[in-house]
Amino acid sequence: MEAVLYPVLIDGSWRPARSSASFTACDPSSGEPLPDRYPVSAWGDLAEALAAGARASEQLLQVSAARIAVFLVRYAERLEQHQRSIVALAQRETALGTSPRLADIEFPRMCDQLRQAAGAARDGSWCQPTIDTASNIRSCYAALEGPVVVFGPNNFPLAFNGISGGDFAAAIAAGNPVIAKAHSAHPGTTRLMAEQALAAARDTGLPAATVQLLYRCSHSDGERLVSHALVGGTGYTGSRRAGLRLKRAADLAGKPIYLELSSVNPVFLLPGALAERSAAIAAELRDFCLLGTGQFCTNPGIAVLQAGPQAEAFLDTLAASLQAAPVGTLLGRGVLQELQAAVATLLDAGAQLLVGGAPLAGPGFRFQNTLLRVSVRRFLESPTTFQTEMFGNACLAVVAEQPSELAALARSLEGNLTGCLYSHSQGLDDPLHDTIAPLLRRRVGRLLNDKMPPGVAVVASMNHGGPYPATGHPGLSAVGLPASMLRFAALHCFDQVRQHRLPAVLRDRNADSRPWRWVDGVYTREHLGS
Amino acid sequence: MEAVLYPVLIDGSWRPARSSASFTACDPSSGEPLPDRYPVSAWGDLAEALAAGARASEQLLQVSAARIAVFLVRYAERLEQHQRSIVALAQRETALGTSPRLADIEFPRMCDQLRQAAGAARDGSWCQPTIDTASNIRSCYAALEGPVVVFGPNNFPLAFNGISGGDFAAAIAAGNPVIAKAHSAHPGTTRLMAEQALAAARDTGLPAATVQLLYRCSHSDGERLVSHALVGGTGYTGSRRAGLRLKRAADLAGKPIYLELSSVNPVFLLPGALAERSAAIAAELRDFCLLGTGQFCTNPGIAVLQAGPQAEAFLDTLAASLQAAPVGTLLGRGVLQELQAAVATLLDAGAQLLVGGAPLAGPGFRFQNTLLRVSVRRFLESPTTFQTEMFGNACLAVVAEQPSELAALARSLEGNLTGCLYSHSQGLDDPLHDTIAPLLRRRVGRLLNDKMPPGVAVVASMNHGGPYPATGHPGLSAVGLPASMLRFAALHCFDQVRQHRLPAVLRDRNADSRPWRWVDGVYTREHLGS
Repeated sequence: MEAVLYPVLIDGSWRPARSSASFTACDPSSGEPLPDRYPVSAWGDLAEALAAGARASEQLLQVSAARIAVFLVRYAERLEQHQRSIVALAQRETALGTSPRLADIEFPRMCDQLRQAAGAARDGSWCQPTIDTASNIRSCYAALEGPVVVFGPNNFPLAFNGISGGDFAAAIAAGNPVIAKAHSAHPGTTRLMAEQALAAARDTGLPAATVQLLYRCSHSDGERLVSHALVGGTGYTGSRRAGLRLKRAADLAGKPIYLELSSVNPVFLLPGALAERSAAIAAELRDFCLLGTGQFCTNPGIAVLQAGPQAEAFLDTLAASLQAAPVGTLLGRGVLQELQAAVATLLDAGAQLLVGGAPLAGPGFRFQNTLLRVSVRRFLESPTTFQTEMFGNACLAVVAEQPSELAALARSLEGNLTGCLYSHSQGLDDPLHDTIAPLLRRRVGRLLNDKMPPGVAVVASMNHGGPYPATGHPGLSAVGLPASMLRFAALHCFDQVRQHRLPAVLRDRNADSRPWRWVDGVYTREHLGS
Repeated sequence: MEAVLYPVLIDGSWRPARSSASFTACDPSSGEPLPDRYPVSAWGDLAEALAAGARASEQLLQVSAARIAVFLVRYAERLEQHQRSIVALAQRETALGTSPRLADIEFPRMCDQLRQAAGAARDGSWCQPTIDTASNIRSCYAALEGPVVVFGPNNFPLAFNGISGGDFAAAIAAGNPVIAKAHSAHPGTTRLMAEQALAAARDTGLPAATVQLLYRCSHSDGERLVSHALVGGTGYTGSRRAGLRLKRAADLAGKPIYLELSSVNPVFLLPGALAERSAAIAAELRDFCLLGTGQFCTNPGIAVLQAGPQAEAFLDTLAASLQAAPVGTLLGRGVLQELQAAVATLLDAGAQLLVGGAPLAGPGFRFQNTLLRVSVRRFLESPTTFQTEMFGNACLAVVAEQPSELAALARSLEGNLTGCLYSHSQGLDDPLHDTIAPLLRRRVGRLLNDKMPPGVAVVASMNHGGPYPATGHPGLSAVGLPASMLRFAALHCFDQVRQHRLPAVLRDRNADSRPWRWVDGVYTREHLGS
């Protein structure tokens, strides 16, 4: 019997897709397709979602931020009520661990993000109310016009999911409806959460099309979607290739798009640090190279060392411990193929294989824990090639013959999400550090000391972003509230607008939530004139 | 005797351009070319400026914000010392009035902007220091990597000049070197100011290439410039056509570019307002249509009225007073030709000519004060055509037969810098206002009540920006400090970075200037732990 084709969520209803094709997810641990079948939507679905989203965008102007906050909290509660089934299906679709990971790390993080977004919406400081009393000119951020499209990635089925993750939470909290595009690797997880999103929207009286879900569409329809006149903006996390196609289309139409694309996250291990604590750093690097089978946006993909007996010993230890460590499962066939291709690219360019380098036999998508090595000199002959992202459990060690090569390497780096510097605790590395850090600083969004980058804390000061091509904009973060909301907002200035027509956060009497406001050069929560 | 070809300013020296061609500016009041001859730079000049700018960008990392502030103030002082010669040449190159305008409005505004930027740099709050103490993650904005290219427009030879205007001040104050591209209509004015910029940089010990000046280059070299690997970002104010070419090039390379392109700045004149104060509004609209011969980015280009005897009387008055008013001089031959073409486009599409519509005979670039008229119904048949910008002293009246057509018109608007609503002072128009305002609000950057949009106050709450195609980004303003600086900055996050390596604004002990910091959800200027 043919499997049922799941419906899409458009304008408040689950209804059959206008689909030209269908697909199933896969159990990565067996390589076998899962039974549930999902539609590839034709343009008609996208057009309807856009029209409904545009209506919702206008309806949301009448909905208070407080009610949007209630929705976000209600949604988190509903997800928690259904945690067991959601996590079980996510585990099946991704082969990521239940504990640690999906149940006890990613799920709580997702719910925490939704609640933080609710708090930010309720408070109102996110919109940066600014008042110049002498000129009576006032401004604040407000939702975009039209729905925000969110493309979620394969590697975080919960915390970055298009229907529940950071971009979703930020867009909704800023007052936008969302059209979520599920990742094809975990459509079922996305569906289960979308059901709760819809129920929460109904519970709290939000417009029907505040949350919509499509499973898949053609690349060209995706480009048409993000560049459509009715769309407000787009958040995308995924591969560089697909992301750049969407970026080009959106840019040409003048539509905001925020992308998190790829990153090799260089880690500089300075000689003093290795002299001091080589074994501990090797263990830490191994652990974080293999975390989530290396499928983190901030996975340490390049380790930089200065040549010498110490570096050789470090690499021997690292190689042995990578070889001895269990091999995790990759998220899908495509990930395995891309990883294999990336490793081949680096080997072809002249990298040396220290350990691993081949897919594992047997069921499921697995690749040996892999360590490659290349000299800085060779690296600098083909810096673009050697910065090919090996998305998965693989790392490239880059070895400098001279200290000066470390700075040259830093200068050759593309934009990255993160960069790390491990240095001697008592300052022995400081001269070398001080030549590298200013260069590295400008090629990364987040600079770390003596710490591996995975673990993107959801705090106001986080930057999960970085210079192109890590993301599409160097000044905005995908994680960390309330800053991430500004991506999905426009600046609204009011010049001599009558008091009763102003948004509550801009009136002389501050809004009830008493947001922080920048008034005549001072931050204050007070009413004007008080 | 052939005129000397002025040199370009590259890496701290005025040196002969590598030029393939040359040009002169024009006296718009006579139409005659001015004697001074300027080079069209070949790519070699741009490449050298880029390389020098990249070095300066790195050198500026060692320069304190306080010293940059001293430079900006010193530059303003030097400009003031040379005000007479600068204004005289600006007057000759633009035909804009000396007083009122160049000497007593634009010049002081330019100097005020430079001083405001100095204040923002010195204070440091602009970079939004944000600290989460529990995780010890800290972030702030910092200069981009590489020089910022600034293209100034034709209509503000001082306050928006690439070497002295708002984009220049914002980019420098944020810590970036600037490569200014002079506007070809006022190269001499730009040269005089660049001389003072260079002298001020020397006075205050800034890197040689902090300020550089090129006069002109080919379109394709311009595209190559803004998309070059060494460039940090670009600010552009000018025509939509040229701007979109630059935008496409920069976008494809992932380089930030901020553009102010075009705007028709719709003004809705609701019936109650006309019943109450028709003559005053007609006079105000005439004055602002003709201000600077209509060559303001925020010039009211479209006036929207509800049909009836009142509207007819208003238009009669307006037409008569436009016809009676003196005709100003346009900035150049190109402006005159474009205005003539735009008027022809609107007439061809079905607009009716109420007054004006033709160039004036005689020397200089002048076009009759012009008023066109079209019905909303006709407008909505070709909304894109009817939103062709008539840059100059011309206005289109759009007349609605039904009140409901006003909302339909608002829905058809492209993105604009500003939108105005004139309504009855005692609320008679409020129901109609309330149907239009939410629609108009999302199509404009700045919404005004009972006030014409020219006069862009340089205050923190200003938004001189708006949805595409008015600008390239709906969330960022080109005017208003410190917000405008964020366009030329990247977000830098520091995760467990050792105290002494942090920027001063992120250390436990706050910087000496005590900037406002967002610490654990509260704005404060205090040191941490105090």
